[in-house]
Amino acid sequence: MAATSSTPLLKDELDIVIPTIRNLDFLEMWRPFFQPYHLIIVQDGDPAKVIKVPEGFDYELYNRNDINRILGPKASCISFKDSACRCFGYMVSKKKYIYTIDDDCFVAKDPSGKDINALEQHIKNLLSPSTPFFFNTLYDPYRDGADFVRGYPFSLREGAPTAVSHGLWLNIPDYDAPTQLVKPRERNNRYVDAVLTIPKGTLFPMCGMNLAFDRELIGPAMYFGLMGDGQPIGRYDDMWAGWCTKVITDHLSLGIKTGLPYIWHSKASNPFVNLKKEYNGIFWQEELIPFFQSVALPKEATTVQKCYLELAKQVKAKLGKVDGYFLKLADAMVTWIEAWDELNPPKGALTTTKAPAPKSK
Amino acid sequence: MAATSSTPLLKDELDIVIPTIRNLDFLEMWRPFFQPYHLIIVQDGDPAKVIKVPEGFDYELYNRNDINRILGPKASCISFKDSACRCFGYMVSKKKYIYTIDDDCFVAKDPSGKDINALEQHIKNLLSPSTPFFFNTLYDPYRDGADFVRGYPFSLREGAPTAVSHGLWLNIPDYDAPTQLVKPRERNNRYVDAVLTIPKGTLFPMCGMNLAFDRELIGPAMYFGLMGDGQPIGRYDDMWAGWCTKVITDHLSLGIKTGLPYIWHSKASNPFVNLKKEYNGIFWQEELIPFFQSVALPKEATTVQKCYLELAKQVKAKLGKVDGYFLKLADAMVTWIEAWDELNPPKGALTTTKAPAPKSK
Repeated sequence: MAATSSTPLLKDELDIVIPTIRNLDFLEMWRPFFQPYHLIIVQDGDPAKVIKVPEGFDYELYNRNDINRILGPKASCISFKDSACRCFGYMVSKKKYIYTIDDDCFVAKDPSGKDINALEQHIKNLLSPSTPFFFNTLYDPYRDGADFVRGYPFSLREGAPTAVSHGLWLNIPDYDAPTQLVKPRERNNRYVDAVLTIPKGTLFPMCGMNLAFDRELIGPAMYFGLMGDGQPIGRYDDMWAGWCTKVITDHLSLGIKTGLPYIWHSKASNPFVNLKKEYNGIFWQEELIPFFQSVALPKEATTVQKCYLELAKQVKAKLGKVDGYFLKLADAMVTWIEAWDELNPPKGALTTTKAPAPKSK
Repeated sequence: MAATSSTPLLKDELDIVIPTIRNLDFLEMWRPFFQPYHLIIVQDGDPAKVIKVPEGFDYELYNRNDINRILGPKASCISFKDSACRCFGYMVSKKKYIYTIDDDCFVAKDPSGKDINALEQHIKNLLSPSTPFFFNTLYDPYRDGADFVRGYPFSLREGAPTAVSHGLWLNIPDYDAPTQLVKPRERNNRYVDAVLTIPKGTLFPMCGMNLAFDRELIGPAMYFGLMGDGQPIGRYDDMWAGWCTKVITDHLSLGIKTGLPYIWHSKASNPFVNLKKEYNGIFWQEELIPFFQSVALPKEATTVQKCYLELAKQVKAKLGKVDGYFLKLADAMVTWIEAWDELNPPKGALTTTKAPAPKSK
């Protein structure tokens, strides 16, 4: 798994998905690491606006008009005026792996002062197994210089395939609005040199800022929900995806890693705006977590799609009474899977799906 | 929770338990950190041997004759010729907290080159809550400069009382014999600046080398089993204690933290000797882990003692068929609790128990 300087890892097997409303100047700093890869840019907001992409990047760009044209009525499942729209990029990708990053995230430095190649670390995380069934106290046993410690069952040392790699953030931590308001000056300066598996049965807050996953293993679960324009909630898109994904990876015996790599998160969003977006999420979450903690998927749910449709059914049945929003969301979850399957027909299947025709460079 | 330079944290509420067969020269290096505390030394092996303790330490020392005298027939539950004997020290302590350390463990340095006060970090870990019900991606949210991230349910932010603090090791990692044999030169050089809670429902390999716990919260579960002389197994004492403890802390909604502090582990034990000790453990463990993963404790088990006796019953019923050893171990677990209760009668209870009379300085 050694990267040679001439061929970047997974060059033709990974797309970088970036949701944005502005020119992508932030890519300049990422050029040494991202330029060999293909970008999928999902333009949020006004489709008439022209997004400038720095010279030399290979990309396709989709605005709202493209999404509507490609998905037709099913475009209703893709959020508007919210970075949740990024999941459209997961759907149109034809690659095995996705890395998604926010456009206010820059290259961080490790404690030695060296620029961190976040993408390379994500790829390492994804290409080595996870250990969801038993905790290893020296963290990721597959890293150089580490292993399984005494008392780790030998039958579990092959681990499980890694579906998700969740990276972290230096500088501005990913806090909710109340915490931002209480601690406006807190910065994350602690570089924790660890990658670890979130154990089976444990939920975590998955942040979409710096996230990689294996589309083939878990893609259809990475739906970022209904947020933003016309919806009573925001800033819970990645959380929703994370809870659904965790429940499904647990059911399918896949792993999720968190920790390295870090990116440099440059700018705290406005806590007052965030509070308004988050209000319902903070409130509803107290019912969502017990729901996800107790969800049981049937044995027959052997694919991500089947798991996800079952989850949609349970969301409708059990969360509909929390708020009518969840009835809409459950329907959107079904639409998402239908759209996913339309754009990603089983390999070898005959299909009449029109190929998407994005604005490409 | 700030430590002042004049008064060490919990000076009169914590005992340091050290199992040993040799002179305790290693204490010289720990003098700045340990000297204010009381030591309980459990001398293993030949009771006629005189163990030298450096000047100026406040200690009590128990050899096998003392253990036999104090516990009478119940002394059978305390291992001989194995560092598992250390748990006798937990039992005779009258303090709220225990720190236990091996005599081949020295003061490690943090990346800035500063000596790590391991005990102080353990105390910080024990005095701040744990988060066993939901994973926080920025690790311990109670540390300076950290908090709960976006998406962490507010109802869970008070955490749970911390029962155990599990510290790690630089230099010689705690590997089993097969891994030692395969990687004789591997050293742990990675300083991971993190403390985290082992999530509820997840087992981990608890190492007794550098371990602190709250006796009042979890003491009676910290039985290190039957190892060493006359037993078919060794080097699983701390593992056994860890699995029992984890199952019971989960049941009682207590937390276990792992990570910082590091100690410097100086010397790898002989892998050939270890292999002989571990053989049965490696083999049996494949049945023990599923057992502990599926153990259910009844609602009526509201104290550590009740949980532990219930666990002993299940060990007898379900592991007895793995090997007759577990029938003996289940009986020893019961004896351990009887001995614990004899030496630690409920507060305010009248008792005729003889006070132990150790060799004290």
